[in-house]
Amino acid sequence: MDKEQVQNNRAIVILVEPQLGENIGAVARAMLNCGLRELRLVRPRDGWPNPAAEAMASGAKEVLKSVEVFEQTEDAVCDLNRLFATTARQRDLAKKVVTPKEAAKLFFDTKFAGDNIGFLFGPERSGLINDDIALADYVINVPLNPEFSSLNLAQAVLLVGYEWFQASLMQTIGSRKWGNSELSTIGEREYFYKRLEKHLDEAGFLYPEELAPTICRNLRAMFNKATLTNQEIRTLHGIVTALSNYTPDSK
Amino acid sequence: MDKEQVQNNRAIVILVEPQLGENIGAVARAMLNCGLRELRLVRPRDGWPNPAAEAMASGAKEVLKSVEVFEQTEDAVCDLNRLFATTARQRDLAKKVVTPKEAAKLFFDTKFAGDNIGFLFGPERSGLINDDIALADYVINVPLNPEFSSLNLAQAVLLVGYEWFQASLMQTIGSRKWGNSELSTIGEREYFYKRLEKHLDEAGFLYPEELAPTICRNLRAMFNKATLTNQEIRTLHGIVTALSNYTPDSK
Repeated sequence: MDKEQVQNNRAIVILVEPQLGENIGAVARAMLNCGLRELRLVRPRDGWPNPAAEAMASGAKEVLKSVEVFEQTEDAVCDLNRLFATTARQRDLAKKVVTPKEAAKLFFDTKFAGDNIGFLFGPERSGLINDDIALADYVINVPLNPEFSSLNLAQAVLLVGYEWFQASLMQTIGSRKWGNSELSTIGEREYFYKRLEKHLDEAGFLYPEELAPTICRNLRAMFNKATLTNQEIRTLHGIVTALSNYTPDSK
Repeated sequence: MDKEQVQNNRAIVILVEPQLGENIGAVARAMLNCGLRELRLVRPRDGWPNPAAEAMASGAKEVLKSVEVFEQTEDAVCDLNRLFATTARQRDLAKKVVTPKEAAKLFFDTKFAGDNIGFLFGPERSGLINDDIALADYVINVPLNPEFSSLNLAQAVLLVGYEWFQASLMQTIGSRKWGNSELSTIGEREYFYKRLEKHLDEAGFLYPEELAPTICRNLRAMFNKATLTNQEIRTLHGIVTALSNYTPDSK
């Protein structure tokens, strides 16, 4: 992490289960086109490093040098404050849906100064699974011809990065205050969600069993829409503790 | 030409000397992503039709079916009213330089209702030659990381098309009057420039000979900045005629 990244928002691209090394290389190029330099990979199909990615990246090898590899999506995003999941299709999850332009605007909103932001992209064919989308605060949907909206991975990264770069140019022109965000990290939120789920499970709330994953996702979606601060997470923990300590016997 | 195209502006993508069929196919996909359907090719290296283009286009084959092939760039653009040339580098030609967003805004300006608009892209490696850029009214420059701004052909088309599509969405939301533009076609302008050049050559103005191409390009650049109407072209013809008929003898 260099000095500039500490002073500014960091924008990180996370690819979940990318299949072709060529696509990872093409993503590196698209990222550097837009001044994005931090790339994380979750379970890349062909392992890492990948010679096909190196060959395709050519002038953008510096991005590949930054790559960090993770086994779980959650681990790849736990230090981020704000996560955007990109999807081609509309999902039924209750998430705020934004365009790349709106996402870029949010990114440079002074409210979020100092935040670490992630853009999450799924595998080439299938896209993100619902459990990964559930980690995110927002879903990015690129407004394109509804009759033909499928983009390859690098093009999706390019359009999101393009708007990010345009917004950053505006940012350079305008002035802004940098500060420390109170916004919770995804790791803090996940710790809370897991604790909540454990309590709910013990309480028989996650029933019937086959619906439990859906219930948990919907809980995340609901809380994530609230843009929770550290303080709010602490408050929620307090509520869970209080409720869990309450039993009918003590009534 | 279908009815809808007659009623609305037509936006046409022109690729000059595209090399790889794969890139033409990828351009077709990027175009259809953005609702663009008319593609013209000038001297495609591997001829036309091209099986590699078909294979790459997959879901966007309808764009390839529309392809028209030309020997000269001028012939490929002569029926257009407004031409945008895309370049990666800054050129020394005196042209209005716009971003893709500004180009899209101009496209939907009610002043230009009914105009046929072209986006001109050069060969993969070298980009457009100055003589082709000289045909254009505007140069499009995509604001990207200045340290790494090279895009492949399909990505350049995607970013220009993306802004076009975003502007067209705004357009659908707003209301607009359609009308007939008075704007000259590029063919009308070229006819005038050639006539002017012939007269200037005869008059010894295009001297020394090795500078003649540069002088002619600069003349085009100058006039094209003026956004000439039919009537203005007619007036210019009249001026050339008048001046040419004037000789020192008749003084």
